[in-house]
Amino acid sequence: MNLILIDPDEINGGNTVLAGRRSAHIRNILKAGINDTVKIGIINGKMGIGIITAIEGEKVALHLQIDLPPPPPPCIDLILALPRPIMLKRILVQAVTMGVNHIYLINAKRVEKSFFSASILADDGWLPFLLSGLEQAVDTRLPELSIHHRFRPFIEDTLPPLLSDVEQRLIAHPTGGRLAWSNCSGAGQVALAIGPEGGWVDFEIEKFREAGFTVFSLGPRILRVDTAVPAIMAQVNMIKAMG
Amino acid sequence: MNLILIDPDEINGGNTVLAGRRSAHIRNILKAGINDTVKIGIINGKMGIGIITAIEGEKVALHLQIDLPPPPPPCIDLILALPRPIMLKRILVQAVTMGVNHIYLINAKRVEKSFFSASILADDGWLPFLLSGLEQAVDTRLPELSIHHRFRPFIEDTLPPLLSDVEQRLIAHPTGGRLAWSNCSGAGQVALAIGPEGGWVDFEIEKFREAGFTVFSLGPRILRVDTAVPAIMAQVNMIKAMG
Repeated sequence: MNLILIDPDEINGGNTVLAGRRSAHIRNILKAGINDTVKIGIINGKMGIGIITAIEGEKVALHLQIDLPPPPPPCIDLILALPRPIMLKRILVQAVTMGVNHIYLINAKRVEKSFFSASILADDGWLPFLLSGLEQAVDTRLPELSIHHRFRPFIEDTLPPLLSDVEQRLIAHPTGGRLAWSNCSGAGQVALAIGPEGGWVDFEIEKFREAGFTVFSLGPRILRVDTAVPAIMAQVNMIKAMG
Repeated sequence: MNLILIDPDEINGGNTVLAGRRSAHIRNILKAGINDTVKIGIINGKMGIGIITAIEGEKVALHLQIDLPPPPPPCIDLILALPRPIMLKRILVQAVTMGVNHIYLINAKRVEKSFFSASILADDGWLPFLLSGLEQAVDTRLPELSIHHRFRPFIEDTLPPLLSDVEQRLIAHPTGGRLAWSNCSGAGQVALAIGPEGGWVDFEIEKFREAGFTVFSLGPRILRVDTAVPAIMAQVNMIKAMG
């Protein structure tokens, strides 16, 4: 936890009182005491510091000085065939750490139907993993996350209006060439689709192509999805950073 | 397991008999039967197929046709400040999946001393994780792995002769600039050093600089080591692949 995230509702006259996980981190990991400062971020807001004014039992009171902008918004929208829940948790943390704007969890032929019943997908069960990624990266912008149970309505109806401003559209698949400079250089947003274990089927690739996606490959080695996600995001970020 | 790995000692007149994990994979995951073929690799050797000739209880007998070369050797030597054991396991699998030639696990100021007592470091406890990475990537070349308990003798005495042919030397650290084309383009081998949670200390950076390493950064977001390893390797591989 490189940043302690606070909901705007938790602030009262420039002060906040924390208990639970965040308080335990301040007391037990940072070993902070009265008058020490810790890094604070307001979810979807600015960042700054909190000065510890009181510690009582497991409660930590802080006076906030929040005046720094968060990092620039990430340039990647991730379209991910729903992975198995244990892998999804790790991928969510990693993707948010690296920086992602919107996460679309979608169905595909090779997605096991039971994955959609996972508890992480119910009642915002994914939220702690997104927050964990922001805490690691030192960012406050909570990505949007949406779940799409049917592939065809998603690719034909849901996606096109959402991507109307996104010109750079990429889908990872072994038949593609290597990611090229021209695929994602410049300032635009990138929509990046990564398939399930076992890969996309031909029909899905065809539908993505129709939606304007370019197929690319990471190379001949077969990566697990939780390796592929940070690897591909790193390559896109690198091209973006080089201009 | 996209490839079943066999030790040369397990081959007898072009045939082999498997039990345990590999047999269970053939029977229960691939659901293969007599005369079916499975992908086989000889550790540090060629690849090919095995034709199932008998299944008796948990034993699977195969006739081997091994005539394909393994993928080209990876271009990265990874120098990794020893991470906590649970993270090390994941990183070893990921690094080997992406392709690594030699893994140096080294000490550093911010490495917890207790990590060196982890069972994974004793009696080749790391070997199953390297094999798992090869099985995932479809490769047979087992990386070398060495463990170095003291930082200074490693950087001053051990490393220089090992890297005598390695011109491209990179160390990840927040003070560096972004990875540049010139850092690792071309055909050479790359030595890549990645620090512990909390980062390298100044003395360590200075010693790496003296050993010819260039400092680079992945950007302002703070990544966990198990995200940084695939992310950085992917960027190096990308530059290599582009020439």
